[in-house]
Amino acid sequence: MTKTRYSLPVRINYEDTDAGGVVYYANYLAYMERARNACLREMGFPLSELQRSQKLIFVVAEASLKYLMPARLDDLIEITLEVLGVKGASVSLSQQALRNNEVLVDSTIKLVTLNSDTFSPCRIPEKLRQSLEQHRIEYGGL
Amino acid sequence: MTKTRYSLPVRINYEDTDAGGVVYYANYLAYMERARNACLREMGFPLSELQRSQKLIFVVAEASLKYLMPARLDDLIEITLEVLGVKGASVSLSQQALRNNEVLVDSTIKLVTLNSDTFSPCRIPEKLRQSLEQHRIEYGGL
Amino acid sequence: MTKTRYSLPVRINYEDTDAGGVVYYANYLAYMERARNACLREMGFPLSELQRSQKLIFVVAEASLKYLMPARLDDLIEITLEVLGVKGASVSLSQQALRNNEVLVDSTIKLVTLNSDTFSPCRIPEKLRQSLEQHRIEYGGL
Amino acid sequence: MTKTRYSLPVRINYEDTDAGGVVYYANYLAYMERARNACLREMGFPLSELQRSQKLIFVVAEASLKYLMPARLDDLIEITLEVLGVKGASVSLSQQALRNNEVLVDSTIKLVTLNSDTFSPCRIPEKLRQSLEQHRIEYGGL
Repeated sequence: MTKTRYSLPVRINYEDTDAGGVVYYANYLAYMERARNACLREMGFPLSELQRSQKLIFVVAEASLKYLMPARLDDLIEITLEVLGVKGASVSLSQQALRNNEVLVDSTIKLVTLNSDTFSPCRIPEKLRQSLEQHRIEYGGL
Repeated sequence: MTKTRYSLPVRINYEDTDAGGVVYYANYLAYMERARNACLREMGFPLSELQRSQKLIFVVAEASLKYLMPARLDDLIEITLEVLGVKGASVSLSQQALRNNEVLVDSTIKLVTLNSDTFSPCRIPEKLRQSLEQHRIEYGGL
Repeated sequence: MTKTRYSLPVRINYEDTDAGGVVYYANYLAYMERARNACLREMGFPLSELQRSQKLIFVVAEASLKYLMPARLDDLIEITLEVLGVKGASVSLSQQALRNNEVLVDSTIKLVTLNSDTFSPCRIPEKLRQSLEQHRIEYGGL
Repeated sequence: MTKTRYSLPVRINYEDTDAGGVVYYANYLAYMERARNACLREMGFPLSELQRSQKLIFVVAEASLKYLMPARLDDLIEITLEVLGVKGASVSLSQQALRNNEVLVDSTIKLVTLNSDTFSPCRIPEKLRQSLEQHRIEYGGL
């Protein structure tokens, strides 16, 4: 049931922590982006290539985060990604930070695709859309 | 009507930008925190003092952001703060990033107050609560 | 004797600290850059304008830092800048992080000026060179 | 001849870049730290464990960097580490950022070991010193 879920391991370093001894809260947004980009790269669509060949860039339009438990120095956490929906020029994701399958941070991210020259909406190419659909979240037994 | 709104100027440096030529999206959460801490400091409650004398720390429980327009290198933006509500051990804020009164990023942040030793909820001291109430958002004429 | 020295106040926030309770060591390089850009802006040469009108960008070629004392949460520190020398397409600076006139970090930074299109060396315009010379370090009693 | 050299792969993300389209110069210090900590972890001395069991922390005393070539979005670079020397309570390292064996950034870092309670120098434990010696730089043909 979790085959559709992409997951990236992230090790917590000093650079990630703050004086509270835990990961600084803004850094989870950076981890979420790392996982998105790593997922796109594995699917054959690295960001730099999308921009070069198709003038397509992803821009975050909305982000909602719930902070449930803190990660700490040396922790090895997982950043997951599942697609909630793909439209013509936007995609919505569920992303989590997990430690031993415990949810530390739960987020929903909405991205829009823009033309890198005009910054107007840019339709998601069909091949990319199909690849994203492979990570669409599955709802069990409902 | 905006007397209750706290505002902190923030200058955009290279460190804040990304290869898209705009402020990296996670950095707005850091700016929001800068404004919160500067506001607390001006009200006479610097974070380091709250922790030392009262073992009280603020922890972000929830954050929601809408990204409307990007900020760029050398921009001078404003980060605002208004209190939506204060409860026993939590406070909800509306925070915005503005450039010439245009909203770039709109956010709602929920913070909880914890005891820095036990990490259990810690009641907001009465004086701090009263100071926070001075920044409670005003609804015009409704 | 210190009239030539440019100084920028920097407040330490949670985002700046690490789990050691002090400012993360890489962040001082960001503060040094903030002071350089603020100094250029006050002299009438904001970075974004230099790039737009003259295709000139500053790039750090060398940086040396000595970490003497740590800065902590809520500290108000000063980042200073003095010019050690200006050549055709490079400038060397002495930059320090100070707290109550105590040196926390002592650094020497060498910047080169490049054409933003070709990335080849770009001669520092005469007016900018003269402005930089106003911050040339003074040696007492020699 | 390079068996002694530790190396950590680092992927460049948007969070790492600046408006110049390249990695922000301060971030290399963060990468250098990632490689140091990963190396210590692989040798059986994770930072968090050293602090917990021996009250030992590493603090950077000096850092010198030469920036030769920039890294860009999506680049996969390598951060290397070789030990230049180990003393009672300090260790000097040569660290580089490489892309396809081309040196992007060349650095020398001096770390001191402190007691995390007293912040006074703390002798490097013999087992840790021996492990560090395994990464001592080799000089060819001498």
